[in-house]
Amino acid sequence: MNDKTTLSNEYYIKKALLLARKGAGRVSPNPMVGALVVKDNTILGAGYHRYYGGDHAEIDAIRDAKGKTEKATLYVTLEPCCHHEKKTPPCTEAILESKFSKVVIGTLDPNPLVAGKAIKIFRQHNIETKVGVLENECHKLNEAYWKYISSRIPFVTLKYAQSLDGRIATASGSSQWISSPPSQKLAHRLRAINDGILVGINTVLLDNPELTTRLVKGKNPLRIVLDSKLKIPLGANVLKEQNVAPTLIATTAQADRTKLAELKTAGVEVLVVREDKNGGISLPDLLGILGERNIASLLVEGGATTITSFLQAGLADKVIVIMAPKIIGRGIEAIGDLNTIDIKQALTLSPMRAYRSGPDIVIEAGFVKK
Amino acid sequence: MNDKTTLSNEYYIKKALLLARKGAGRVSPNPMVGALVVKDNTILGAGYHRYYGGDHAEIDAIRDAKGKTEKATLYVTLEPCCHHEKKTPPCTEAILESKFSKVVIGTLDPNPLVAGKAIKIFRQHNIETKVGVLENECHKLNEAYWKYISSRIPFVTLKYAQSLDGRIATASGSSQWISSPPSQKLAHRLRAINDGILVGINTVLLDNPELTTRLVKGKNPLRIVLDSKLKIPLGANVLKEQNVAPTLIATTAQADRTKLAELKTAGVEVLVVREDKNGGISLPDLLGILGERNIASLLVEGGATTITSFLQAGLADKVIVIMAPKIIGRGIEAIGDLNTIDIKQALTLSPMRAYRSGPDIVIEAGFVKK
Repeated sequence: MNDKTTLSNEYYIKKALLLARKGAGRVSPNPMVGALVVKDNTILGAGYHRYYGGDHAEIDAIRDAKGKTEKATLYVTLEPCCHHEKKTPPCTEAILESKFSKVVIGTLDPNPLVAGKAIKIFRQHNIETKVGVLENECHKLNEAYWKYISSRIPFVTLKYAQSLDGRIATASGSSQWISSPPSQKLAHRLRAINDGILVGINTVLLDNPELTTRLVKGKNPLRIVLDSKLKIPLGANVLKEQNVAPTLIATTAQADRTKLAELKTAGVEVLVVREDKNGGISLPDLLGILGERNIASLLVEGGATTITSFLQAGLADKVIVIMAPKIIGRGIEAIGDLNTIDIKQALTLSPMRAYRSGPDIVIEAGFVKK
Repeated sequence: MNDKTTLSNEYYIKKALLLARKGAGRVSPNPMVGALVVKDNTILGAGYHRYYGGDHAEIDAIRDAKGKTEKATLYVTLEPCCHHEKKTPPCTEAILESKFSKVVIGTLDPNPLVAGKAIKIFRQHNIETKVGVLENECHKLNEAYWKYISSRIPFVTLKYAQSLDGRIATASGSSQWISSPPSQKLAHRLRAINDGILVGINTVLLDNPELTTRLVKGKNPLRIVLDSKLKIPLGANVLKEQNVAPTLIATTAQADRTKLAELKTAGVEVLVVREDKNGGISLPDLLGILGERNIASLLVEGGATTITSFLQAGLADKVIVIMAPKIIGRGIEAIGDLNTIDIKQALTLSPMRAYRSGPDIVIEAGFVKK
């Protein structure tokens, strides 16, 4: 009997997770949440948090159930909120009013100030409450959000395409295209679900990318260029279409004032950030500023110098490597010097996941903190 | 009706493939073959080619069927032989005598002088004969063998463990252990199914490996060291236990005569090979000599210089990379200079297959010939 209950809880939470993911790229800096109203093994209502400022998933599902919530079970991937927010009334109130007999929750709110409060309220009202169904999946769904709300700096994903032997270009800089059309589409999807996308000035000068999501449906993230000396040409592709995809140039006090003024006239935002000890842009400072601007997730697309800087500073949370079926040999390595003397000092990845993208293999992994 | 027949043919050939694999590492330079005797959906006999010089799979299966072969179907992964060999009478004769009503064959013998001959014989005797069931799998099972019998040089697999960023050691040479215990076991399994294992002298001097299969059940391959100047210390681990695992040192005319004599006295074979234009050992010459000695498959385990030499010479047939969940940064790259100027000149791998080995991901691929 118990087994059957558990199975069906997982079934519905899995469905709710799929719904939640539909909000990817639209709800930040809120978490993605999905919810279902179920009675007698029938789904009476389904909902998710559709966009930032829109209804929470629970409210969306309750509305979809059109009044048939009495004695039903509410499935929701994340513990409902119980406090009045700027944008919405607490979901706990709406759930109580809907007279559910049971609430099944994927994972608790990881904010220790809030965690468990909604559950307490439900139990006080004699609503059967179960917590922790597909907890890992429900937690992982919003990994960027958890990092962001606890640290106020964005969750950083490093993404690059390399050959099997770890090169991103030949010694002469030839790199287009290492990866396949399906992987280029995947890269655009990753852009669409991140709040910001960042590259170094060398990538702009060498590849002149647009950094938009033109190959997929979805919003354009804020385009950010690390350019400590403001070398960016005014005609660079990344500066075009400011009305659809704004660009932020992060620079330092070394920047030429005239160039700075020109960029501002062209409608491009230029941010002067503190220098690090090597004269580059202080990445912790930049991430702090981005966090204040509600950039909860940042995709770093290269090149080698920029990727290596994030690793050196210990500021990367995740790596997504598109491995093309090629061996280049001596060329430009994706990762530069990390001052690793003994093999035990190497950065450790976990868990490492591999999947196929056209002819390429994508490796996705987090970092084990030391 | 047709669909059902096809399905069940695939089912039995798949079973025969599993049997065939049991001969891995024991039948070379013969191919691995598996066979089943089936009647009324019942398996009456199962067999495989167990060791070099032993019965062929068909004979093994027929014997296992204990006389119950009349009007049965014989499933065999490879076209039966029809010529008298030194070791065994032709299988076609035994099959005719066993009065099978049907023969289902995975793949034809790829030797154009032999291909199709057995099928012709069966059809002349009114035995229903089907060819080409799981043809790719049946062919791939013996990829080393096909290469060897057509070229008389061994099928070469490059195998190494690298970090995600393509390094096999830190700059100071620290590398033990990049890969996990399950992957070390996998490496020993690969040794057991290859006829020879080869490393460069630097690997011997740096890591002092034994190059045996002590972590798994299975035979030891011939241990081969590339050592153009005969720098190998007489106490090297790879020279121990010559009675269980013989070692062959490939050197050039540059070798010191006294050292050469000492090695011979210690029971180690030293082979003087022609030099290539850089004063190294000519790999085509060495592979030719190994082929003459019935080394049909060769596992090259490194280090970077040796692996790169095989790639430069276009002598690698397959690559197996054990990718550890680590990022090392600047260090020793697995692959050195391949003179790749434009990305289009990079070596192309296909098909690329990824699977898990403990915390590591293994990438296995062949090379697309240009």
